Amino acid sequence: MRKPFKLDLYLVTDRDLSLGRPLREIVEKAVKGGVTMVQLREKSASTRDFIQEALEIKSFLRHHGIPLVINDRVDVALAIDADGVHLGQSDMHWEMARRLLGPDKIIGLSIEKEKQLKEANEADIDYIGISPVFTTPTKKELEKGLGLKGTSEIAHNSKHLSVAIGGINLSNVTDVLRTGTNGVSVVSAICSAEDAEAAARALAEVIKQVKQESRL
Amino acid sequence: MRKPFKLDLYLVTDRDLSLGRPLREIVEKAVKGGVTMVQLREKSASTRDFIQEALEIKSFLRHHGIPLVINDRVDVALAIDADGVHLGQSDMHWEMARRLLGPDKIIGLSIEKEKQLKEANEADIDYIGISPVFTTPTKKELEKGLGLKGTSEIAHNSKHLSVAIGGINLSNVTDVLRTGTNGVSVVSAICSAEDAEAAARALAEVIKQVKQESRL
Repeated sequence: MRKPFKLDLYLVTDRDLSLGRPLREIVEKAVKGGVTMVQLREKSASTRDFIQEALEIKSFLRHHGIPLVINDRVDVALAIDADGVHLGQSDMHWEMARRLLGPDKIIGLSIEKEKQLKEANEADIDYIGISPVFTTPTKKELEKGLGLKGTSEIAHNSKHLSVAIGGINLSNVTDVLRTGTNGVSVVSAICSAEDAEAAARALAEVIKQVKQESRL
Repeated sequence: MRKPFKLDLYLVTDRDLSLGRPLREIVEKAVKGGVTMVQLREKSASTRDFIQEALEIKSFLRHHGIPLVINDRVDVALAIDADGVHLGQSDMHWEMARRLLGPDKIIGLSIEKEKQLKEANEADIDYIGISPVFTTPTKKELEKGLGLKGTSEIAHNSKHLSVAIGGINLSNVTDVLRTGTNGVSVVSAICSAEDAEAAARALAEVIKQVKQESRL
């Protein structure tokens, strides 16, 4: 059975944006602050270092019941028995990943354009990442964001749960959640915060409030 | 059963050294010239592009009975059902790779120091890559090569088949083979050659001669 997961406040790590601090430290503080899910993203580490880091973070997260998803690298996910993978449009195709990972793992898929939604809606995946909501320095190749309107359209037409990512912080998280996504992904809003725990807690509280309002 | 393989003339691809030509073209010419094994190495391509390229090259190589090994990326090897992987000392540990790939795949392991041989000799792998024989611009991080003496020592103390790599070309291939390795790996001597087929053929002929002499 796939591990139950909550997309509410989904941390995506970025070593370059972590001000030199170990990722494990950021993740621990973020979880204390209320992060509900973690994605480990490594673009330059060696495979061995990536695996070692992922093993350490997995051991911490399992203890706290927080799912760990690996960005792109199905080999790393298999090696450490992660809870799943997150795949971009230039990563392994979801169908191949599902075949390699089996039915019990979480697969997330990035959606960058409304037209990618058709395939995603028919895919055996668990959630979509709507990306990017706003332009952000961590995704230089994407010229402009989907905006709140684009995000809302994709979220409403998705058959899967959705999480929004890209330039989300305390000042816009309310607007983003009101588009109808199930949660928000953040990178620098937590990784680059001086106090990652306080940053996560502030976001988690706003998310909780907005979700309560929307149920009224 | 693991695919039978011959290390005699082992091509390792490098997109940056291929003078802008498609890797598939280099591989086809190299096989015509007499390459006995191919390793696909990609350090910057996206996972999807790597898989696509590997699928195309596999389809060609299967037709010619030449084994295809993927450098580092066990996920790509699994996705395309390659014949095996080649692992460096900072890639996935061989034991984990064997677990993920099963007993039927070839695993090669790079040995950069005599002291790494002890573990390799007890490992469930198929060959070692002795690396680098000579310093080479494709492995900037390694300060100096093992030289012919270092290569010979590792080759003779290895319980596995061995292939030498690093700065090998037509002018030194005879000396390298006489150290006792089962074959040589080349990158730029074929990838950067104006005529990859002629370059492979010239190397293959020297290798054949040296191997015949050593049997006299």
